[in-house]
Formats: sequence, structure tokens, C-alpha cells
Amino acid sequence: MKIENLTITGGTHGNELTGVYLVKQWQNDPTPIKRETFKTDVVLMNEEAIKNCTRYIDRDLNRCFDTFTLTKSPANYEERLAQKLNSTLGPKSSESPNSDFIVDLHSTTSNMGLSIVVSNESDLTWMAISYLKQKDPRVRVYKWKGDEEDAFVDSIAKHGFAIEVGAIPQGVLRSDLFFDTQKLVYHLLDFIDHYNKGFSMALESVEYFEHEILIDYPRDSQGNIVAMVHEDRQDRDFDLIVKGEPIFRKFDGEEIYYEGESLHTLFINEAAYYEKGFAMTLARKALRVL
Amino acid sequence: MKIENLTITGGTHGNELTGVYLVKQWQNDPTPIKRETFKTDVVLMNEEAIKNCTRYIDRDLNRCFDTFTLTKSPANYEERLAQKLNSTLGPKSSESPNSDFIVDLHSTTSNMGLSIVVSNESDLTWMAISYLKQKDPRVRVYKWKGDEEDAFVDSIAKHGFAIEVGAIPQGVLRSDLFFDTQKLVYHLLDFIDHYNKGFSMALESVEYFEHEILIDYPRDSQGNIVAMVHEDRQDRDFDLIVKGEPIFRKFDGEEIYYEGESLHTLFINEAAYYEKGFAMTLARKALRVL
Repeated sequence: MKIENLTITGGTHGNELTGVYLVKQWQNDPTPIKRETFKTDVVLMNEEAIKNCTRYIDRDLNRCFDTFTLTKSPANYEERLAQKLNSTLGPKSSESPNSDFIVDLHSTTSNMGLSIVVSNESDLTWMAISYLKQKDPRVRVYKWKGDEEDAFVDSIAKHGFAIEVGAIPQGVLRSDLFFDTQKLVYHLLDFIDHYNKGFSMALESVEYFEHEILIDYPRDSQGNIVAMVHEDRQDRDFDLIVKGEPIFRKFDGEEIYYEGESLHTLFINEAAYYEKGFAMTLARKALRVL
Repeated sequence: MKIENLTITGGTHGNELTGVYLVKQWQNDPTPIKRETFKTDVVLMNEEAIKNCTRYIDRDLNRCFDTFTLTKSPANYEERLAQKLNSTLGPKSSESPNSDFIVDLHSTTSNMGLSIVVSNESDLTWMAISYLKQKDPRVRVYKWKGDEEDAFVDSIAKHGFAIEVGAIPQGVLRSDLFFDTQKLVYHLLDFIDHYNKGFSMALESVEYFEHEILIDYPRDSQGNIVAMVHEDRQDRDFDLIVKGEPIFRKFDGEEIYYEGESLHTLFINEAAYYEKGFAMTLARKALRVL
């Protein structure tokens, strides 16, 4: 099945400016995102949050695309918005949604470099990822494995993922990561075009990091944080952590050591995750055979 | 004149967590901030903004301590708060304010390292800064020279400055900068104690960076940003910029070159300054003779 429509979404989180300004730039001049064999759309997702330069108004939009939230009576701004976006980009789970492939642009305060967050199992999605890793070997892949049905923006379409770049503070543009993200999107568009044209592409199996555990900050009985990410662990996204290594530092200076099995640390000290209750996630290296 | 009361203020900006959590830690255990010859208080400044993890609710609190704002009928939350804080810590310009020395704790998304922002001319303030630079040679000093009367928190007292550390995203704690800031405060408290006791201290003249110019992002006629800080200038706070060097990169890739005299770039790409309209500030190296 050929891809007929691809959508680039930015500003799903209103304070992640890289995606916001990339989409605006392509709205002004769509020439670089045009390809022969399919139509590319760009969408600025959460315009109210973008105006306020906040992640969201009432609820994280990137957690609103599960079937329950998309079909219930909406309780707030983002739930209403998700249903509207689902009707223009989806609808989710339909045989012929309006968008065949969604790439959702994000940034993170964690030192995640050029990364892809994927929860989609489609072969085409993984072929695209393999192509991107060939084109830019810095690209690393995190497979999010939720217990519930996926609620990310890209889950509306049959194929897709999020691009997640960092470290970058909320409300800030970095020229290097702006153009790195832009280039990844252009590689993706080329891949889809080659795929539609039936080009033979020598794609290799994909090394990725499979989600295992969320780790919260140490807290007191009132829920207040009592420790920070240890200075030796800060910025070491995608690095291995082994038993006995320091993981947190309490405000009084005391160190806390990691006690679990050897895994890789991701999304270390992301600003938006303090309220969600995780200081980092742990993942296991794995291989997706193509 | 001896110092009788020193105040450590944190959370003047509610999303700068380093100061917020340092103050909370000292509220829980004030032992490390006690010294023989004076009283140390700690104040959590903008509690509503801290609750929301935003810089401010209605207006930047750290621009509300000019005499006009402190005496007019308050128009919003921060103006009311500034007047209240002025009555407990000040009042400003009185002969005997409740606080003799204020050190206000900030963080920045710019790569400012361990820095002090000062707008106070008192000899004691500069002696304290000289002592801190001796104790930690990484400390750099930026002298803010506004056209208007100073409106910073520390302007309430006769002596004081802000400690400004970075790079750190808003809403994030970094263990390294947390303890660096804490250590600077302890050095300050030691200095005041030595000063009160009449110890002889061999203090040297202070190299500092004197504010010259604010530089905004390039914008279109609607006020929208059309360029980012150039990737070669990003993170180079306190570095010299000379004519002909790249300073901005437009979204379409075009480079913009610096045209002015050789000066030092500070507060490069600070998140909170996008709305204030500056991409960086320029300063000239200078010497304060003690």
C-alpha cells in the first residue's frame, strides 16, 4: 500500500519551539516538503498552548489520543482539541484515515540527542526508522511500551513516530537541533517517496531501546521531591547503569545507589516529567529484525 | 557598619528550581546558614508562581522593586507581593531596612556558569564579590546598568546581588549547580562573618562585565522571530564577539553577521527573554578597584 498523505505535526507541546517553528517555516514555504508521490501536510497542533508557551492548557495533548478520550464527552480544552484533530487527521483505527503517516516533532530537556520515540509496530514505520538511522547514525530509537492503548498523536495514523531532540530548554530554539530535526524530516520524506516508487533499499535491522521501567524521584510522605538526579548520571541518556552506581543525590548531600539490573537510562531529568512522577526511564537494548 | 540581618531569597521566579529547593532545604535545617555575628533569614518569594512552576503569574516580580511600583496602587498579583515583601525585607531606601544584605538566587537557560548579577555600588557588596571570586575563580560578574532605577529584589537592601547559574532548563534541578550555588552562599556568609569580626582580608580588585547593549532576535513586521542564535555563538556566554562573526541564523538558513564593536556576549538565548525582546546582551570587560 502506497502512502498518499503524510502529516508533520508540531507544537503538540506548546513550549517545544523546535517543532512549532519548523511547521511555521514550512507553512510559509512548503517547497522543501513536496515530493512526487504523496501529499505532505503540516499542522500546528496546540495553538492555545503555543500562544502561552506552556506544555498544555488543561491536559497533556500527547496523552489524549486513546480511544476512550477520543470518544467520551470531552472534559477540557485538550480533549476537545484531540477529538477535532482526530477527525481531520484520522479518524483513528479507520481503514482509510486522512493521514497515512504522522511524524510528530518534539524536544526534550533531557540529553536525548537525535532520537525517535516509537510505539507503532507497522513494518513501514520500522523501515522508515532503519532508513533514518542509515542516513544519520546519531539517531537512536526508544520504543515506548505502555500498558494501555497508545495515546500519542502519531497513533491516529497507521504509520508514524515522534522525533524527540535534546537537550534543549522549554521555550528555547537551538539552531543546531532545529536543522538536525529538519534534515531528519527531509530524509523521511525521501524514504516515503522511494518506497512509493518501489525502489529497492538495503535496509538493516534496527537497534533500539525497549522501555522497561519508569523511575520516580525519591519523595517524602507528602510527595515532595527529596533528591535530584545524581551529577554523575545527569546527561547520560542511552548509557548503561549498573548496580551500585549513584543515581540520585539528596538535598542534604547523601547519595542513593542504583539497585536493579543493568539497563539504559533515558529521558533523564526531563522538566515536564517532574509532575508525571518520573526522573528517568530504563530500557533494554533490543533488535528489530526487518 | 556591621551587617545584622542577611536574607537569602529564592523562587523570585517560580520555575527556577535551584533557589526554590535551596531555600526549602534551609527552612528544614537552618544550621548551615547560622553564623555568630548576624541573623540569616530565608524567604520563598513568589509562592503562587512556584506552585504553577512558571516565572510569574501577572508580571515579572524581579522588575517590581522600583520606587514607582512599590508606592503606586498595585495592579496585579506581583505588584501586591512586591509591596508586601518590601515591607518585610525593607522598606527600600530607608535608613534601617529590616534586611541589610539580600542575596537573590536565580538560574538561567543560558550557559552563564556560576555568575553574579550586580547593580549595587556599595563597597561592601563589591568586597563580598571579590571574596567569592577568590574562593571560586569560576565566578564571573555581570554589572547590570539600567537607565531606570533598579527594580531587582536585592535593591531593597543597602547591599546585595543575585546569583545566577546556568545552563539549566526552567523547571529542572541539576545537582552540580545546586551544590555550587549552595557553596557560594556559604562563602558569602563566611565573608560577612569575617567582615563583622573585623578580620583583615586581602581582597583584590574585581574584573567584571559592564552592561552595554541589549540585542533582540531579528523579527518581521508583525514582531515574529525570523532567526535563531547562530549555532557558533550558542553557549558562548562571556566570550568576545568581533565584527564579521556570525550571530544569528535565519530559519531559511541564511547567516547574519555581527556588525558592532568587539564586546562580550551574555545571557545568550535565555528562555525568559524571548518575550522581553532580547536574544543576548553585550558587555565590556572592566575593573572595579577595591
